[in-house]
Amino acid sequence: QVGILDVDLCGPSIPRMFRVQNNDVHQCDSGWVPVFVDQDKSISLMSIGFLLEKPDDAVVWRGPKKNALIKQFVDDVAWGDLDFLIVDTPPGTSDEHISTVEALRPYKPLGAILVTTPQAVSVGDVRRELTFCKKTGLQVLGIVENMSGFVCPHCSECTNIFSKGGGEELAKHAGVTFLGCVPLDPQLSQSLEEGRDFIQEFPKSSAFPALARIAQQILDSTSQQSS
Amino acid sequence: QVGILDVDLCGPSIPRMFRVQNNDVHQCDSGWVPVFVDQDKSISLMSIGFLLEKPDDAVVWRGPKKNALIKQFVDDVAWGDLDFLIVDTPPGTSDEHISTVEALRPYKPLGAILVTTPQAVSVGDVRRELTFCKKTGLQVLGIVENMSGFVCPHCSECTNIFSKGGGEELAKHAGVTFLGCVPLDPQLSQSLEEGRDFIQEFPKSSAFPALARIAQQILDSTSQQSS
Repeated sequence: QVGILDVDLCGPSIPRMFRVQNNDVHQCDSGWVPVFVDQDKSISLMSIGFLLEKPDDAVVWRGPKKNALIKQFVDDVAWGDLDFLIVDTPPGTSDEHISTVEALRPYKPLGAILVTTPQAVSVGDVRRELTFCKKTGLQVLGIVENMSGFVCPHCSECTNIFSKGGGEELAKHAGVTFLGCVPLDPQLSQSLEEGRDFIQEFPKSSAFPALARIAQQILDSTSQQSS
Repeated sequence: QVGILDVDLCGPSIPRMFRVQNNDVHQCDSGWVPVFVDQDKSISLMSIGFLLEKPDDAVVWRGPKKNALIKQFVDDVAWGDLDFLIVDTPPGTSDEHISTVEALRPYKPLGAILVTTPQAVSVGDVRRELTFCKKTGLQVLGIVENMSGFVCPHCSECTNIFSKGGGEELAKHAGVTFLGCVPLDPQLSQSLEEGRDFIQEFPKSSAFPALARIAQQILDSTSQQSS
């Protein structure tokens, strides 16, 4: 049982990636019922995307209003018995991040996974996020380098469009685990775009083993922690 | 004379793109002196990046503190006599955006340029930003589609890594100007990465005519407005 909480209140993109953007959230006695994204009801999702009347509605909210909703998303959603709660944040170290860390503190979060792209400007942002984790006492489970190299489907040559290796270097420098690189992959973009199951449809894609390896490492490190 | 104001307080990347990240901001009688990025002193830049002691310092600030600094950046910086002030915001429709629009209102801003990538999730974010502009009475100068197609330097075949055409479609749908597409270009990334002058170093790059065309359209539309 996995819960996914999308705290990107101005740009909620997770509902579309699971093709459930037209679903509604209902109330029950124990709070809001999250949206289940699969038939087995093993993955539940909560996002402000489900609360907007129209998909174009802009969430023109200052911080305090955001903070209140994030607290509700953690405490007033009927998450049930979860093995993991995955929280997707926007970039930065501001209201969404401070509120999420505060709201989750009683539940002892396992840690943070920091995602960068290979360029120095993005690595710079993640360096600041490392400082944020240290300040707030949140363990860093590791760093992922996304958009890392592009293999041309026509000639199979790899081009590092956004440079390469920034994530791994940063992980070494900061003494945290480097979880791996995810290459730029049109099939992965297309799956996310159309809300399709990437693993089932493109098992031979180059991004697939990369993602599987990252997931396995996270599972290994969290099972050590919780045992 | 052009001023650039970087209001991405948690991820200030503009100083590095101009290779001036190690500069300091000084005080004069009329306020903070911005950093000049060229010898002619025709481009001045203000960013929280210049105010941090160490580049890894995280700006762990909630909204109200951000709002106060953005007001100062607009009113207490000795910008001098500018032809244009360009404000770079993070994604979203929150504190940074509300405060910027409020602080600039007395100066009658010419409008907003919305940048999307081609995928539906990014286009969705920009639809919400269009709603924000309408609500706050900010004119939309146009939409740019960034990361639009990648031409392999080995075989010259183009791959639309992140799909294609989302920006143009949205512009049509919303009845605003489509300013053009900027392709994924390793030379452009490299220039931004190393703070080098892209126009001088790679005049034959495919991104160059795309950027020049967009800039010309913006100049044309703003000169009509101000005349």
